[in-house]
Amino acid sequence: MTVNRRGGLFVISAPSGCGKTTLSDRLSPSFGIVRSVSFTTRPMRQGELNGKDYHFVSKEYFKKLIQKKEMLEWACVFGNYYGTPKRFVATHIKKGKDVLLVIDVQGAMQIKKSGYDSVLIFLLPPSISALRERLVKRSQDSRGEVMERIKKSRLEMSYVKEYDYVLVNDEIKNALYKIGSIITAERCKVR
Amino acid sequence: MTVNRRGGLFVISAPSGCGKTTLSDRLSPSFGIVRSVSFTTRPMRQGELNGKDYHFVSKEYFKKLIQKKEMLEWACVFGNYYGTPKRFVATHIKKGKDVLLVIDVQGAMQIKKSGYDSVLIFLLPPSISALRERLVKRSQDSRGEVMERIKKSRLEMSYVKEYDYVLVNDEIKNALYKIGSIITAERCKVR
Repeated sequence: MTVNRRGGLFVISAPSGCGKTTLSDRLSPSFGIVRSVSFTTRPMRQGELNGKDYHFVSKEYFKKLIQKKEMLEWACVFGNYYGTPKRFVATHIKKGKDVLLVIDVQGAMQIKKSGYDSVLIFLLPPSISALRERLVKRSQDSRGEVMERIKKSRLEMSYVKEYDYVLVNDEIKNALYKIGSIITAERCKVR
Repeated sequence: MTVNRRGGLFVISAPSGCGKTTLSDRLSPSFGIVRSVSFTTRPMRQGELNGKDYHFVSKEYFKKLIQKKEMLEWACVFGNYYGTPKRFVATHIKKGKDVLLVIDVQGAMQIKKSGYDSVLIFLLPPSISALRERLVKRSQDSRGEVMERIKKSRLEMSYVKEYDYVLVNDEIKNALYKIGSIITAERCKVR
């Protein structure tokens, strides 16, 4: 009998401030999907936990990981490095587990070419003004940084067509339901 | 901005006695999907309603519809004709509605080639013995007919690989959830 998909990568990309962290935190327990925690060299923000939100490491360490080819994908954004460790992903995929990556567009494009069975999901903000509002409300960034992030978001949104699915994160409940549906449906796909 | 899929065909095929009628009856109201009622020349069974379960018509009338090319797909199964009217489908698709077709493998293969945006879902019984049990329990068919249906089911199951999705109808609640997820996910697809 045909076997459904097992052990693939679900990639979620979204402009910052789009609610992707909250979403992915809630997804993992409900859908038996393992979240890959990225490495980053950016400073830890208030409320973040090392090992949960990111593995916070030095630039030297990160560059060493790149050199040793231990990164499945990596990108440099606003001068900070972000990346997904190869070993973590490989271990879980081998066990037939699905792995969730919350990464930016550059990373997602690398995953697409990685040879892994991958499903790319793009989360849109309801509008650019809603995005600006969220970023300002979060008040983790200066005014200049907010503008930079919005500029980057516009650029990222032009990559939507490279993704498999796109949805608007208007309400977290709706978005969760839709992403859950995508995971469930993908698991029913005929290989 | 990218527009999600609108107005496509969702095709469900399953061996008879697999619970597809119950499932599709419950799907239509929850997912804003219009169910196409097939034409058939087979006799009406107890509990069935003309216009709801099928449009029950004569062989002469059915053959005329074929001649006039008014059938989107049709098949002859155990000497009876079954088919989907073109006009009904075209009207709803034009309005951007999704249409649900509950049809057999032969019909599904014709839909795949029809040029319509289509998603093919195959419902499997938990096992052949479970299928036999359901058919006997339903007791609409003679012993010989049950055997014929099981033989046909085995043949149909070899077509699973031509479908987009496959799921086991172990419990109606689970199956409904999965088909609902497929519909929701397909509506989030990037065109």
